[in-house]
Parts: sequence; structure tokens; C-alpha cells
Amino acid sequence: MNTVVMLTEDHPHGALVDPAQPLINIEDQGLTRGDGVFETMLAANRTVRKLEAHLNRLSNSARMMDLPAPDHEALRAAIELGLSSTETGPQTVVGEEHVVKIMISRGTVERGPHSWVTITAAPEKTLRQRAEGVKALTLPRGHDPAEDGAYPWLLTGAKTFSYALNMAVLRYVKKQGADEAIFVTDDRRILEGATSSVIVARREGDSKVLLTPEPNHGILPGTTQGAIFNAARANGWELGFGPLYPQDLYESDGVWLASSVRLLAPVTHLNGNPLTVDAALTEELLGYLARS
Amino acid sequence: MNTVVMLTEDHPHGALVDPAQPLINIEDQGLTRGDGVFETMLAANRTVRKLEAHLNRLSNSARMMDLPAPDHEALRAAIELGLSSTETGPQTVVGEEHVVKIMISRGTVERGPHSWVTITAAPEKTLRQRAEGVKALTLPRGHDPAEDGAYPWLLTGAKTFSYALNMAVLRYVKKQGADEAIFVTDDRRILEGATSSVIVARREGDSKVLLTPEPNHGILPGTTQGAIFNAARANGWELGFGPLYPQDLYESDGVWLASSVRLLAPVTHLNGNPLTVDAALTEELLGYLARS
Repeated sequence: MNTVVMLTEDHPHGALVDPAQPLINIEDQGLTRGDGVFETMLAANRTVRKLEAHLNRLSNSARMMDLPAPDHEALRAAIELGLSSTETGPQTVVGEEHVVKIMISRGTVERGPHSWVTITAAPEKTLRQRAEGVKALTLPRGHDPAEDGAYPWLLTGAKTFSYALNMAVLRYVKKQGADEAIFVTDDRRILEGATSSVIVARREGDSKVLLTPEPNHGILPGTTQGAIFNAARANGWELGFGPLYPQDLYESDGVWLASSVRLLAPVTHLNGNPLTVDAALTEELLGYLARS
Repeated sequence: MNTVVMLTEDHPHGALVDPAQPLINIEDQGLTRGDGVFETMLAANRTVRKLEAHLNRLSNSARMMDLPAPDHEALRAAIELGLSSTETGPQTVVGEEHVVKIMISRGTVERGPHSWVTITAAPEKTLRQRAEGVKALTLPRGHDPAEDGAYPWLLTGAKTFSYALNMAVLRYVKKQGADEAIFVTDDRRILEGATSSVIVARREGDSKVLLTPEPNHGILPGTTQGAIFNAARANGWELGFGPLYPQDLYESDGVWLASSVRLLAPVTHLNGNPLTVDAALTEELLGYLARS
């Protein structure tokens, strides 16, 4: 059973609620309009990783959506309450694992925005993807999201409840026997996964290069990709920022989909064709995350 | 107070529920992922207009989202129950008015999809827009949605809960002192309103021409626009289907935003500049709707 902490007027730092009971009004605009913002995080041994980065991205999403600025201290307290109350999560190399989500909905017209935190044991599927890797398909995004960046009303870079497209993409790739999608522009430039960032490693003589598509081109800034890149630089990696094409993935020494809970899933196949998988490299990059 | 009818296993044709109580699970994917489909309709004198067209578009949205096919008979029964139980709506030239919504959410992972119908008295703002017209701004869509049409995973043409962008657009235009947005491509071709279709009338000598942007180019097919066009053709109008540019709106004999509840709101200003408004034409087109 999930653990849910709601932040209310009576309990501004959150109180435990029973998620088996209906908790949401049927006119909540988070429901009727996908009108809210969220963050998904990993807790290892009941401590959220990169919490500051997530809270900052949440504040940015809220600002873009004209939602009130999230109260970071209240959210930290709510997360702490939830993590101290939740059931045991699976034990992995990173420790005891839970998924922590912060949700902020615009709420009903009458009562306005409200927030809650949900905590679940890390799902088996995620742990399996991390261990066994994923098969990915490239899918056209229909347009280059960089075209949207200049127009604030298109919410580029906000992480909103309006995720129907991302969910449709995952259903589509599953029907094709794959696990994940990598969006590309019509000229085949790599963008991002449906729910992840793309990271590519390449050895060039003695030097090691870590690559990802250009940030700030309509791609959601990945907190996991950012953490890995910061640590990799400190450990002697060169960093590169796109453009990347499918050819670059086929000619790489490793490709991963990075996200907060999945951490790093090696891409074993692209459009049905095998990619180089290097367990030692995966372990090295995961090590950077553990220390971030 | 809204009237809400939920369709459940025990009440497959719907039962009245109390919307003052929380009714939705906090893990409902309609909420957490904007993962659901809906229709908004107008009931005049407690009869839904164009119900068949709305049910067909709902079925199309559900199919695109891999949701179970909606049971039209059950939904008709639920709507009838709601309309026979709801409070009195405002009296206008079209009769007693209510807004009727059908919502289908993917529900929780454990329990799966579920549906409900909400009924509210037609809001004053809508009636005012119909009477007084609206000020519209053209806003770039960031890309031509026609580019998305070939890719089913982009859900072009599905009416989903993931409406955060449309809501952001309405907030944006309100800050600029306008009421509504008209999306344009980067080459300034007219697409559609954020929550409406665009209709343009032009007199050419003795003939009258009714125009709308090309359908099936990434624009949601408007049931109201369709109904007006069908009746207009039968009444001697010529019909035209884009491309339309802002110039065509400035040089027209009338521009309207058409949607099911608003019916036809004359656009009085485009980007702050006055457009021709013709009350007789509005009345003529509204008359076609009343008989559809």
C-alpha cells in the first residue's frame, strides 16, 4: 500500500491520509484538465536523492504554470513524515529503495491549489530495467520541440500532469515488443526518452567522452543526467552536448536512459539492433550517482 | 452545486453521487497522468445537442488512447438521469441551458477505467461571450500540428484530460487583456482556438461563403463547426476549407469561435484591432445550430 501525506491548511507540513479512501474532488482541475505539476524521486535508505534539484525544478514548473511557489520546507517535512511511516522497500545495491512523488494540483476552482506526497516501494519493473537493460525504439516527435521554446504558453520544460502523450508512447512501443521510446526530430536528431534522458559514452584513444542531446532545446533538463555529468567531469570525462543521431548510438561504447528512479538503464537494442553494452561502464556511472 | 452521475459495476447505467465528497482515488491515472478522454456538450431544455456526434468523437478519442470502447447506451442513460435530477439552469434564447461533460479516466492500475457524467448550469461567462463577443490573440502553436498527424502516439485529434497547455494559453491571453487564443503556424496560417474552432464568413457579390481551416490537419474536428457547415450548405452557403491567414479574418464579414457550449462567439477584436461584427449573420448561423 502507498503512503500518502497531504499538505492542508490544518496540516501545512503534511499529515498521513488513507489512500484506500477517495481523496480527490471530482472537479479537481488536476483531474479534469491535467492541470498540475510533479516530481518523481528516488529515496535510498529513506533519504531522497538530489532533493534540492527536484525542488528547484518543481518551483520552475509551478512558475511556468502560474501556480503558487511551492514551500520547500513544508515539502521536505512531508517527505520526511512519509518516509518514516512507509512500509519496507526492496534492498538493492543502492540500499532500501522507495519512489517519492510530489504532486501539486490546481485543485477545484473554489478551494484552489493543494499538494501531496506519495511514497511507494520501488517497483520490480524499474529494478529489472536497471539490471537487464531496455529495448528502445526511435519515434518521431512530430516536430522539433526547440521550436516551442520561445513561447511560454506551450509550457516547454514544465513537468505537468498532462502526460497522456508520454503514456501513449509507452503503450505504442510495448506493442512493438520494445520497452522505451527515444524521440527524434524529423531530421533524425535524438531528443530524449518518453520519461528519461539519453546518455551516450564513447572512448576516443585514452579519453572518455560522455554525450547527451543539447539541453535547452525543448528537452526537459534531466536531474539524473545532470548529476552524472557533474561527477563524470570531476573524474576526467570529457562532456559533449549533441547533436546526436541514431548512428552515434550504434557507434558508441554504451547508451543509457537516465531517470531519477530507473537511475541508468543500458539500452541493449535500438530499433531491434544490438548496441554495445559495457557493464563496467554502467557501474562506473552508477557510482557517480551514488555519490551525488 | 454540480450534479454527478458515476457509472460503476453496481450501477452500469450510472447512479447519482455527492460531488461535495471526495470521489476520486489519489492514484487515479486520470489525475496523475492526465490519462483520460472527455466531451463537453450543451443541453438545451435538458436535451443534449449533437449527442451522437459527441459520442462518436468520444469513441474515437478512447480508441486512440487504448481505452475500452465507451458504452453509448449506458452514457445516454447516465446523462438522462443527471439531467432529470439537476438544478434549474439559466433561460436563454436556446432554452434552459446546462453544460454536460462525459469523462472517462484510465482509473487506478488495480481497478482500471471508469466513467462519470457531470452537469452544471451554463456559466455566466460563456453566455456573456456569446452575447458580447470575444477579443482574440493569435499565438504561435510552435509547430504545425499537421506534422504530428501521421504518428498515432502523438494522439492528434484525441480529446484528453491533458489540457494543461490549453489552460496555460487562456491564462496567457487574459494577462494580455484578451479572452481567447487563435493558434497559428509559424507561417501565420490559422489553426484553431485553444478550446474552439474558427469560422469566417465572406460575402462575394450575391453569394455567401463560410470558411474554416482545413480539417484533418492536426485540428480537432469541431462538432459545432460541422453542424453549422452542414446546415449552411443546405441554406445556400458555399463552403471553403482554408488555408486562412490573419488577413482573411481582417477582410471578412464576420469571424466566430465555435464550440459546443459557447455555440458562436463573434470575434470583435483580433490582436487589438476591430473586426467586422454582423449581428444578423450571427443570428442566422445560430439558427442553423438550433435546428441541428
